[in-house]
Amino acid sequence: MSDTTDDPRLTALVRSLPSTVPFVAPETLEAQRGAPFDARLGANELSYGPAPAAVAAMKAAVGGIWKYGMADNAPLARALSEHYGIDHAHFTIGEGIDGLLGNLVRLFVERGDAVVTSAGSYPTFNYHVAGFGGTIHAVPYRDLLEDPDALIAKARETGAKLVYISNPNNPMGGAHSATRIEAMIEALPDGCLMVLDEAYTEFADAATRPALEPMDPRVIRFRTFSKAYGMAGARVAYGITHPEIAAAFDRVRNHFGVNRIAVAGAVASLAEQDRLADIVARIKAGREELAEIAKAHGLSPRPSQTNFVAMDTHRDGAFARALVAELDRRGVFIRMPGVAPLNSHIRVSVGTPEEIAIFASRLGPALNAIG
Amino acid sequence: MSDTTDDPRLTALVRSLPSTVPFVAPETLEAQRGAPFDARLGANELSYGPAPAAVAAMKAAVGGIWKYGMADNAPLARALSEHYGIDHAHFTIGEGIDGLLGNLVRLFVERGDAVVTSAGSYPTFNYHVAGFGGTIHAVPYRDLLEDPDALIAKARETGAKLVYISNPNNPMGGAHSATRIEAMIEALPDGCLMVLDEAYTEFADAATRPALEPMDPRVIRFRTFSKAYGMAGARVAYGITHPEIAAAFDRVRNHFGVNRIAVAGAVASLAEQDRLADIVARIKAGREELAEIAKAHGLSPRPSQTNFVAMDTHRDGAFARALVAELDRRGVFIRMPGVAPLNSHIRVSVGTPEEIAIFASRLGPALNAIG
Repeated sequence: MSDTTDDPRLTALVRSLPSTVPFVAPETLEAQRGAPFDARLGANELSYGPAPAAVAAMKAAVGGIWKYGMADNAPLARALSEHYGIDHAHFTIGEGIDGLLGNLVRLFVERGDAVVTSAGSYPTFNYHVAGFGGTIHAVPYRDLLEDPDALIAKARETGAKLVYISNPNNPMGGAHSATRIEAMIEALPDGCLMVLDEAYTEFADAATRPALEPMDPRVIRFRTFSKAYGMAGARVAYGITHPEIAAAFDRVRNHFGVNRIAVAGAVASLAEQDRLADIVARIKAGREELAEIAKAHGLSPRPSQTNFVAMDTHRDGAFARALVAELDRRGVFIRMPGVAPLNSHIRVSVGTPEEIAIFASRLGPALNAIG
Repeated sequence: MSDTTDDPRLTALVRSLPSTVPFVAPETLEAQRGAPFDARLGANELSYGPAPAAVAAMKAAVGGIWKYGMADNAPLARALSEHYGIDHAHFTIGEGIDGLLGNLVRLFVERGDAVVTSAGSYPTFNYHVAGFGGTIHAVPYRDLLEDPDALIAKARETGAKLVYISNPNNPMGGAHSATRIEAMIEALPDGCLMVLDEAYTEFADAATRPALEPMDPRVIRFRTFSKAYGMAGARVAYGITHPEIAAAFDRVRNHFGVNRIAVAGAVASLAEQDRLADIVARIKAGREELAEIAKAHGLSPRPSQTNFVAMDTHRDGAFARALVAELDRRGVFIRMPGVAPLNSHIRVSVGTPEEIAIFASRLGPALNAIG
């Protein structure tokens, strides 16, 4: 057994899979470069952190960590139910959207089943599809956004079980209108479930959010405490969908997989809507500031409905990659889209004003250094 | 779509699965009975809680929860590597042993593959095997312990991909000697991986622990921070195995699934070996006390190498079930094995001295009440 690929005990599917990590974590990069970043603007985290009340709730929950949580994460299910005004049976709670996507694919995708997404969209979704033997059919972005018409056409053509779209979009930052997304739902072919990833929706204008139709079995919407609520390391997110789809997760998931402190923090976060509004205002101001910084350096910022700004270098992917590497050397962590034509851009998270100032001061020298 | 079973979009396998929760959580039971338990002795939690240093480390980690963790949970991988004196590549870290078991089954079990365990052993393992379409072959306990000979014979007969054994055993509390487990490993048929669940090993005599042979590709050992380290709600556990098997987990797992605060707490816990020794001494004393209480009420305690004591009622499963229900009514949460002949027993966790005193005072009245 010189390589797991050769271990005949593994399933045929697993033997065919690469060993991969969809993302290299910021602290892993810091370990590689041997020093912390001065500005951590690559993972779309909320540098402001969670609400003070959520911090307090999590600290208060530490002492009770010897207790198992609840399979249904009842305190959070109840809080979500009250927040949205819909029954708790519409929610499935899991270890981040990543964990929920894995279970979702497991529920719907058999080996060889078609799944549709966009070239350059969320790679962890593709990772899970490959992990269950599905076949990804990727359509191109259109005008630097995922293209509902192309996604639907491809889903129809391939008989897809799932079609994925993020709104707002990661990594480009823009968003479709609610009516555009609603039209996409109406156009879904029979037998295809729409996966609407709304990880960044709290940062977006209300006009980008389709009305909540939680009895609609055609769509599952994913939201998270990792972004606007500042709890990326906690691993807690949720799907909103038809109760029968939510119940299907209970057939396969790790029922006690969500950390108890995370649940306490999420419940407290959800109660702090004034704080959320304040954070969103700060992020919007930061977006504007980043856009100005981009323009001042000859880059073109994309309109953003998220906590990051994509900036077109007007060069190729190799140039953008060199810029990311040069900023890394100068203590600034950013990322970039992985696929052409998106990869002429860099992607910069809206950090604190201090982090934005660091980015502003180092972008020019970095551009000069790589020519 | 009146029932998810009928949703034709779900995979054929998922349509065949029941909606189930392997365990009902203590707080879910409390919600059902409308009041908290006075003694929480049913989930084999550590009522003493984690080490004070671990509590402090978790509280200190709350402020940084806005950051994503690391895919390899590097701080914990490093701490485990130092603790055991073996390379970090031997470890796979996950969201509790439950989460690790799910991924393990996914790696090795295809639809229809045989998997061997014992009737009455850990149900969450069976849940995951069913969830990936494997076929469980269960052999009986022998002398109220899992039977290595029968397990091996059944694995050989069925061509099993996995054979599961817990040592010490849950729910009966006893343990085989290290030499008996080592002989079982030597007897494994080709192509069969042994799943050695050591969730309770820190409470057990050293003579029950096989030598660490981390280059042996025939076995994976699971240990957890849920039991002796008092962090059940944190969801952090690890497998120790051949590096190629550990690496295989990276092909399918939710890389960022473990909570950052949990990692900080686990690292701090591992450093507190004196505290662990103190806890183990307290648990041993509590075991003795529970055994005396059992005897004083005409029950027969099983020898225990864990933080719980199984007590034979010398009656049938219905009687034991009635006793569990009667104690529940009296504010004492315990559990019992689910399968005959184990189910003449009740299973009582070693709580604090106060909880044990509550159990002692209510056991007699409960027995009288049910006759």
